[in-house]
Amino acid sequence: MRVGFFQMDVEYENVQLNLEKLKGVLGKSSADLLVCPELCLSGYEISNRRKLKALSQERESSLFDPIEALCITREMSVVFGFSEKYKNKIYNSSMLIDERGRRFVYRKTHLFLNEKKLFDRGDTGFFVVKTQKARVGMMICFDWFFPESARTLALMKAEVIAHPSNLVMPYCQDAMKTRCLENRVFAVTANRVGEEKNTKFTGKSRITDIKGNVLASGKEKGESVMEADLKPALAREKRISGMNDLFKDRRRKYYVL
Amino acid sequence: MRVGFFQMDVEYENVQLNLEKLKGVLGKSSADLLVCPELCLSGYEISNRRKLKALSQERESSLFDPIEALCITREMSVVFGFSEKYKNKIYNSSMLIDERGRRFVYRKTHLFLNEKKLFDRGDTGFFVVKTQKARVGMMICFDWFFPESARTLALMKAEVIAHPSNLVMPYCQDAMKTRCLENRVFAVTANRVGEEKNTKFTGKSRITDIKGNVLASGKEKGESVMEADLKPALAREKRISGMNDLFKDRRRKYYVL
Repeated sequence: MRVGFFQMDVEYENVQLNLEKLKGVLGKSSADLLVCPELCLSGYEISNRRKLKALSQERESSLFDPIEALCITREMSVVFGFSEKYKNKIYNSSMLIDERGRRFVYRKTHLFLNEKKLFDRGDTGFFVVKTQKARVGMMICFDWFFPESARTLALMKAEVIAHPSNLVMPYCQDAMKTRCLENRVFAVTANRVGEEKNTKFTGKSRITDIKGNVLASGKEKGESVMEADLKPALAREKRISGMNDLFKDRRRKYYVL
Repeated sequence: MRVGFFQMDVEYENVQLNLEKLKGVLGKSSADLLVCPELCLSGYEISNRRKLKALSQERESSLFDPIEALCITREMSVVFGFSEKYKNKIYNSSMLIDERGRRFVYRKTHLFLNEKKLFDRGDTGFFVVKTQKARVGMMICFDWFFPESARTLALMKAEVIAHPSNLVMPYCQDAMKTRCLENRVFAVTANRVGEEKNTKFTGKSRITDIKGNVLASGKEKGESVMEADLKPALAREKRISGMNDLFKDRRRKYYVL
């Protein structure tokens, strides 16, 4: 299986242009799964909820039809972050479109800073999608900070965690080594680059393997597309020694969570 | 508060000599809390349970009286790993002796490799001891691999995690940055150095702060005692931004643990 990230500099409040960029990258990608950043259609620092609503899409929006078509013809899956409109709610969501054109939406569980003012709290919880090549789970940016996010996905048998991000702190990229190692999962963190108002995104998108090795790493600045090959089945094996299985060794009765 | 580690090269199967070493370091330490490695009285690779039993002590053993006395006169706490005999059981345990001479024993929850053949699985679970200067929790070596260990201690309001270790893999020392960051706790990982049979210990003992900064780090080889000052009260504050509190932001209903 080949996975990739699109480390993207989003055009602020220009959904149409960002969609074109996405399609351009998708059309050239050789990945089975391509991951793009959080909120990569609207931009991040939207000043108020009214503006945000105008930049939001519904899950079934026809705007996504060309991406769906590309996924089907190219037999690949894509994950990207977008502002999701649903009734009176607006969610910081990510969509997975698989090779069959199915759409799955995850709504961010842990909102960061001003997102709490703009977005509604995610209510989908974590889940796993069985794509043709791997069992894929999604978490968005700040979700990484809570070990429960990746743990939940791994216990749900995710093999690859797709992790659209708009990281502004310097911690996540290295911490993802621990997230992958402790759960024996692969992760693709697709981070933004560039700036918006006072916010500077930290790049360094990462593909990390089940032992915490970095398979591919973007630079701090500048857009890039990178890919790596991996064997998702390796993530099914939780044994790390002849005597230790990371999941069977868990002793839930001693955890206060 | 001043914390320290004794990165120790244990004399194999020589409890008396190791106790002397411990007393020597305790007698000179200026720490309020000194952490020593896992199984630092017996050594690690004991060949069978019979031999191990002969090297094990009970919690109330008078062998610990001189250490207790030192803790009281020097007004400090110590944590060290030892093989604990209790009825027909043998545990891979750590003892905390506080400034008042109280003894608290934690039994390792997650056993690594051949420890499963030698030791009984810990049955104390995690807990927190209120010493004069800080709320201290213990975990032992491989416990670190399970995010639930440090999480449980932090949710129990541990401010400092004392972490006696005999690390043989290269992952833990950096991963402790993530453990501290995700829980906003301090940690003192006291690792062994030296070799036993085919086992090489990886040194690099660490004192890590609530943001994942390394306050002190031992070398890969050689014994050393290092100390650092920290403010345990900082670990009580789980806010990491004006809008985010790492514990209040947890959304348990979405965790499958």
